[in-house]
Amino acid sequence: MATLPSVSYSITARLEVDAGSSAVGSLTNAVEHVGGMITALDVAEAGHERIRIDVTCAARDTEHAQSIVDALGAVEGVAVHKVSDRTFLMHLGGKIEMASKVPLRNRDELSMAYTPGVARVSSAIAANKEDARRLTVKRNSVAVVTDGSAVLGLGNIGPEAAMPVMEGKAALFKRFSDIDAWPIALDTQDVDEIVRTVQLIAPGFGGVNLEDISAPRCFEVEARLRELLDIPVFHDDQHGTAIVVLAALRNALRVTNKKLADVRIAMSGAGAAGTAILKLLMHAGAENIIVSDLHGAIHQGRDDLDDNLSWIADNTNPTGYTGDLKGSVAGADVFIGVSAPNVLSGEDIAEMAQDSIIFALANPDPEVDPDIANLHAAVVATGRSDHPNQINNVLVFPGVFRGLLDAQSHQVDSDMMVAAAVALSDVVTQDELGPNYIIPSVFHSELSTHVATAVREAALRSSGD
Amino acid sequence: MATLPSVSYSITARLEVDAGSSAVGSLTNAVEHVGGMITALDVAEAGHERIRIDVTCAARDTEHAQSIVDALGAVEGVAVHKVSDRTFLMHLGGKIEMASKVPLRNRDELSMAYTPGVARVSSAIAANKEDARRLTVKRNSVAVVTDGSAVLGLGNIGPEAAMPVMEGKAALFKRFSDIDAWPIALDTQDVDEIVRTVQLIAPGFGGVNLEDISAPRCFEVEARLRELLDIPVFHDDQHGTAIVVLAALRNALRVTNKKLADVRIAMSGAGAAGTAILKLLMHAGAENIIVSDLHGAIHQGRDDLDDNLSWIADNTNPTGYTGDLKGSVAGADVFIGVSAPNVLSGEDIAEMAQDSIIFALANPDPEVDPDIANLHAAVVATGRSDHPNQINNVLVFPGVFRGLLDAQSHQVDSDMMVAAAVALSDVVTQDELGPNYIIPSVFHSELSTHVATAVREAALRSSGD
Repeated sequence: MATLPSVSYSITARLEVDAGSSAVGSLTNAVEHVGGMITALDVAEAGHERIRIDVTCAARDTEHAQSIVDALGAVEGVAVHKVSDRTFLMHLGGKIEMASKVPLRNRDELSMAYTPGVARVSSAIAANKEDARRLTVKRNSVAVVTDGSAVLGLGNIGPEAAMPVMEGKAALFKRFSDIDAWPIALDTQDVDEIVRTVQLIAPGFGGVNLEDISAPRCFEVEARLRELLDIPVFHDDQHGTAIVVLAALRNALRVTNKKLADVRIAMSGAGAAGTAILKLLMHAGAENIIVSDLHGAIHQGRDDLDDNLSWIADNTNPTGYTGDLKGSVAGADVFIGVSAPNVLSGEDIAEMAQDSIIFALANPDPEVDPDIANLHAAVVATGRSDHPNQINNVLVFPGVFRGLLDAQSHQVDSDMMVAAAVALSDVVTQDELGPNYIIPSVFHSELSTHVATAVREAALRSSGD
Repeated sequence: MATLPSVSYSITARLEVDAGSSAVGSLTNAVEHVGGMITALDVAEAGHERIRIDVTCAARDTEHAQSIVDALGAVEGVAVHKVSDRTFLMHLGGKIEMASKVPLRNRDELSMAYTPGVARVSSAIAANKEDARRLTVKRNSVAVVTDGSAVLGLGNIGPEAAMPVMEGKAALFKRFSDIDAWPIALDTQDVDEIVRTVQLIAPGFGGVNLEDISAPRCFEVEARLRELLDIPVFHDDQHGTAIVVLAALRNALRVTNKKLADVRIAMSGAGAAGTAILKLLMHAGAENIIVSDLHGAIHQGRDDLDDNLSWIADNTNPTGYTGDLKGSVAGADVFIGVSAPNVLSGEDIAEMAQDSIIFALANPDPEVDPDIANLHAAVVATGRSDHPNQINNVLVFPGVFRGLLDAQSHQVDSDMMVAAAVALSDVVTQDELGPNYIIPSVFHSELSTHVATAVREAALRSSGD
């Protein structure tokens, strides 16, 4: 699988070119010759002798970007000046800001938004704490909390380095569901301290989105916070992924005319995402699942099981299969991988049941090459944006929290998550549905509203119990 | 001192009025008759028989607002419908929001602001943590931290009820110095827990503004955080007030032709603000200060002194005065009160030295009636917005933090605070200076820039040491 140039590695080079030369015409060729792609070419300044040109190119990675710069510099009559990295430029000073919703143009406005007027609002909340959900940003705010221990594929890079991801998350919350999220990057990886800190900062927030906290600590952090707080706590890496997988699987099963309760599912990976997917699929009615980790199928006879794996052994693998991953995949209807690159080959996929479904979600390199999997399977999904059927949390977390905040929900449960998954899968109409379209685009205009409505209704049902 | 109607107690009443009647003309009279003031009158809907009118009135307080509504309803031909409180309306859903600085219109923009592009930015910060001050919101963000223990004059109303004040503060940060502040309202009043929590959330912020934390806990919280953190920690109730007092006093001394090192200063109040004022005045060169609390002058012979009061006894009151507040005020050049209403009378002020200076800052009722003090003193300042010379923290905290963030300062010290005070007082030109103008308006256009520049330069000097 060759990696294509991407704007995420996009550079802009300021060139000075001899006005009389044919250099401008050679630039595109030069870049393409080394596998780059010019996405924009702007003349910044045109003189009689020299022309200044800003050339923006997509590259595969940092070294490739350098080779493009070198190729540009090698064109006769071209001098390369400043080269800027568009992704870094976009990050200068951060990606988010605080904005005031009230005007503060004069003394009168100041006296309503701040002292002395604000005292009456504070007094009203002191008399009735629940009014904070009406009269403060708690109405619409989510803390995006990380300890920087499992950031993207980068691992334990710490809280400062996690900030760009958390800011991106906050920006997505705003873009897709008008939620005011603020990143809280914690300078501790101790479970007790994480739990206590989040508990202490909770009064100003309407929800908590846990993010990029490594397993197994994330399970305990989430479970304890759910006990302690009266606002919903949602670990997106677990449940966001699980909801999208369930939604995609519902539609893949529609494509292949199979039923969730009937299919045999082989899973690879029992970390945070894997465990959440497993539990949500079971909550939605899946009955025949075998989960494998690095040491093979998880079954009751293994002596290396922690609490989480023991739960899996006790509640899955109904036939007591004790072999390896490949053996569990043979004959299965569905493979779901949230583990490691290239653990399966085309032959393994060929051994699966007729019309098999492959979700190979390891990023950036899936459990099996999707192009090869497509030769044998009916439906293939990955976590990659350059293939059809991308399983992407952005599809659900904005809508889920929108629904929770609108319901002023004190919690989030599996019924609400299944409701979100059903709403997400139903966004794909019967006419649109097909092997390459089991999940809508993140830019689908009604997506977040659909998910939010379903979650809000489920939350109101739950609080009515 | 009669309280005037204020827009901070402003209501809008929707009226239905007989079209043929003279009622509309009677509304203003009716409101004025009960001491209210119509600030806006909008015809929302005009029919042949009935007119709907929105009347907006300023009232003194909640009961007064009700009496205005009653007066409107008593006008013949008028029916009062919905009455809304403008201050509460302004607070619905909170006063602040998170905004994204980057567009997320399509896949390309998503891939730069979020995965996969963001991974490179995170990796850069992982390699060099200081880059977080360049590539994340830490560049420009301040945590506004409270425990809700001493909110305005309302006292210990808890974190939820403190949120409207903290949001107002965040809005002021943005309005006056384009800083991105986010409120963190803590669900604890334990010093150890406050300190630890702020320490743990610090990685995402470029500064900490402590707010409305009661004395003496605020001293320890601030001192310990300053030791622990590599970003500036500033308790605005202490130092913001102290800086404005020093600035105002410099100008009041210019008005009266006296020198800070020469004047005798009587202070009332040794709480958070009083102690900070005392220390900053001493740092700036004041030498003769007597501080009194509820039990009279603070001197070394008292046996009821805590750590803070002992420090004051050891470092002030050079003559060893042991009497009460009134005695310390007699003959003094300057009185500074941050204590309680009406502790001094006009006679006390008359006993002071020629051209005395009165800063009576207790809010809303000053230590001495400013109208009476004005009969005897050369310069009078209060904390009230309806008198000249308002001592208001909003004058400095935005500029102070702007300067600290721009210098990427790791701390804030007394030299920077004196620099802020000098810059603030110098905003008032020699031509403008007078007994009723020792301090500029918070809306003075160059104020924040002046203060920020002075603080930035002082911070760069300090880090160069």
